[in-house]
Amino acid sequence: QKTFKITVLPGDGIGPEVIRQAIATIKEVEKKYEYKFELSEALIGGCAIDAHGVPLPDSTLEQCKNSDAVLLGAVGGAKWDTLPGHIRPEAGLLAIRAGLGLFANLRPAIIYSSLKNASPLRADIVKDGIDIMVVRELTGGIYFGKRGRTAVEGMGEAAYDTEMYSVGEVERIARVGFESAMKRNKILTSVDKANVLESSRLWREVVIKMSKDYPEVTLNHMYVDNAAMQLVRNPMQFDVIVTSNMFGDILSDEASMITGSIGMLPSASIGAGTLGLYEPIHGSAPDIAGQDKANPIATILSVAMMMRYSCGLENVAKDIEVAVERVLEKGYRTGDIVSEGTELVGTMKMGSLITSEI
Amino acid sequence: QKTFKITVLPGDGIGPEVIRQAIATIKEVEKKYEYKFELSEALIGGCAIDAHGVPLPDSTLEQCKNSDAVLLGAVGGAKWDTLPGHIRPEAGLLAIRAGLGLFANLRPAIIYSSLKNASPLRADIVKDGIDIMVVRELTGGIYFGKRGRTAVEGMGEAAYDTEMYSVGEVERIARVGFESAMKRNKILTSVDKANVLESSRLWREVVIKMSKDYPEVTLNHMYVDNAAMQLVRNPMQFDVIVTSNMFGDILSDEASMITGSIGMLPSASIGAGTLGLYEPIHGSAPDIAGQDKANPIATILSVAMMMRYSCGLENVAKDIEVAVERVLEKGYRTGDIVSEGTELVGTMKMGSLITSEI
Ligand SMILES: CC(C)[C@H](C(=O)O)[C@@H](O)C(=O)O
Ligand SMILES: CC(C)[C@H](C(=O)O)[C@@H](O)C(=O)O
Repeated sequence: QKTFKITVLPGDGIGPEVIRQAIATIKEVEKKYEYKFELSEALIGGCAIDAHGVPLPDSTLEQCKNSDAVLLGAVGGAKWDTLPGHIRPEAGLLAIRAGLGLFANLRPAIIYSSLKNASPLRADIVKDGIDIMVVRELTGGIYFGKRGRTAVEGMGEAAYDTEMYSVGEVERIARVGFESAMKRNKILTSVDKANVLESSRLWREVVIKMSKDYPEVTLNHMYVDNAAMQLVRNPMQFDVIVTSNMFGDILSDEASMITGSIGMLPSASIGAGTLGLYEPIHGSAPDIAGQDKANPIATILSVAMMMRYSCGLENVAKDIEVAVERVLEKGYRTGDIVSEGTELVGTMKMGSLITSEI
Repeated sequence: QKTFKITVLPGDGIGPEVIRQAIATIKEVEKKYEYKFELSEALIGGCAIDAHGVPLPDSTLEQCKNSDAVLLGAVGGAKWDTLPGHIRPEAGLLAIRAGLGLFANLRPAIIYSSLKNASPLRADIVKDGIDIMVVRELTGGIYFGKRGRTAVEGMGEAAYDTEMYSVGEVERIARVGFESAMKRNKILTSVDKANVLESSRLWREVVIKMSKDYPEVTLNHMYVDNAAMQLVRNPMQFDVIVTSNMFGDILSDEASMITGSIGMLPSASIGAGTLGLYEPIHGSAPDIAGQDKANPIATILSVAMMMRYSCGLENVAKDIEVAVERVLEKGYRTGDIVSEGTELVGTMKMGSLITSEI
């Protein structure tokens, strides 16, 4: 009987309550299957700042390193917004990505057929659904490059940040892109700004070289400005998108928004081994925290991604995903996705509806 | 009688034919009003590469410098796509922006009421129209920062680009943002990534400082990833957006696409004086070049912006804009915006319909 060690980081705001439903899902999986999950909680974000003065205590990072997977709720809130940058909740996110070497962020943007009307796009554009996987580089680029202040002749103080990518960094993220495409519809769109940026030119060279290893994958290159337009004009043209940390930040959020259901979307951050970090893409929503209103589905689907990528349990992942679809088809909705003719339920009720379908 | 010197840069693809209709508009303005426009043509882009081996010949830049305004068609085409970066058509665009000191790019994203159905967004989202002015910094940031190649220990060759902004650069673009907001609905959204980038933190500091000079303007700060989402979710919340060169490239194109009428949108690039460069936001569309199919409206509306910003002729600008609206209301459309119940016309016919309304 295999046992998986999972570090759970509930975080702030609605984090703890959506995590509670995700844990219930894991417990249900334990009952049905022959797997054991050893769960232990730790602090990250605002709650860690309150307790230890830093958004990612060393003890949390150590515990994560000794796990098979990390499940995160959400971090942040107005309370910590006026602190200096390096001790804000978001700094904890950047530190855990770097600390665990999670260089690839996988962000599926999917419209469930029962939620098509939620998309802000015209019905004829989303009639065949949206199913995009954005693969964002997560530990390099301008997020982690050299930055500072200096002075510019006649223009006063100046501040700079450095976008930098090495061949090795591009190779490993491009490989995740190609491999993802192989498991899907075999179309990979590499997004860059090679008509302006040197780092994008290197990016493109490496991606083209690697495409020789994947003759079955159709590789397209698209400038980031055009990609921002095409996501709105015709999202169906995309299968897998692979791009840099900064462009991926922007495009993965845009891709999520066109599905119309931010509360539904999970994410996975993975590295060279099987250790991964799984979290909903939504924020900590302090305005509805503690009111049993938050949608736990994105976090539950993050558990599915965890089963798939860190535990290698594809069948369990599918089981959870199908359970979510069934509950949606039966017409249950949390407040963020409720519409005429559907039944409004709270966080806990939504969680138990899903576990009862597993 | 005032005379304005205009340098006309037809460029490549559909550039020359849309420019022809824009010139017809200028001639009509000359007939109706007491102003003279001295037009002289010059080369930029692919046609300049063919004739002189460079996308922006010195003679063209000189001629532009000695003008009151520059009117550009479009540049580029497959023929020049395999040339090295610095002699591609796009390099001519970057060089003319820098060469003329055009640090502010004004990109209106407007839905004309007669074209609402063209928007890819749901009808209920665009029911009150879209009317956003994106103010993009155009001669700084990562577009013009230090770049190159280097090596990274254990990761092979690396390439880098530098995002850099000085207080002076941010001040002058922020001022354009605030001034634009003062002439509109007095809401300014400054877009940055201050939770990660040092250059964004300086950007935000300067914008906040300057807001003291504009107590009537409501200033909001928004992260670029959120802005990419909000444009799709609720574009009506925006009045003026001010942002960096790179973020502006992405967001101005996204804002244009949600209007659904790329062929309708003009742009202005301005600097410290009244000299400005005016061009449609669409590309050179080689596939339909020379077939009398291109929509000349974006270029004609660029003439209107030229009248407003470089010539100080607000009444003439309005006259042209109203002429365009009237022709649309009468149901005439080029191929890119034609729909059931409207009448398809070619480039030349559309141009003459508009001049006849002036
Ligand atoms: C909070 C912020 C630093 C972070 C990022 O930009 O990576 C967030 O936007 C995300 O996408 O996870
Ligand atoms: C062609 C390219 C260099 C240019 C830019 O990125 O500025 C274009 O996308 C634009 O927005 O005018």
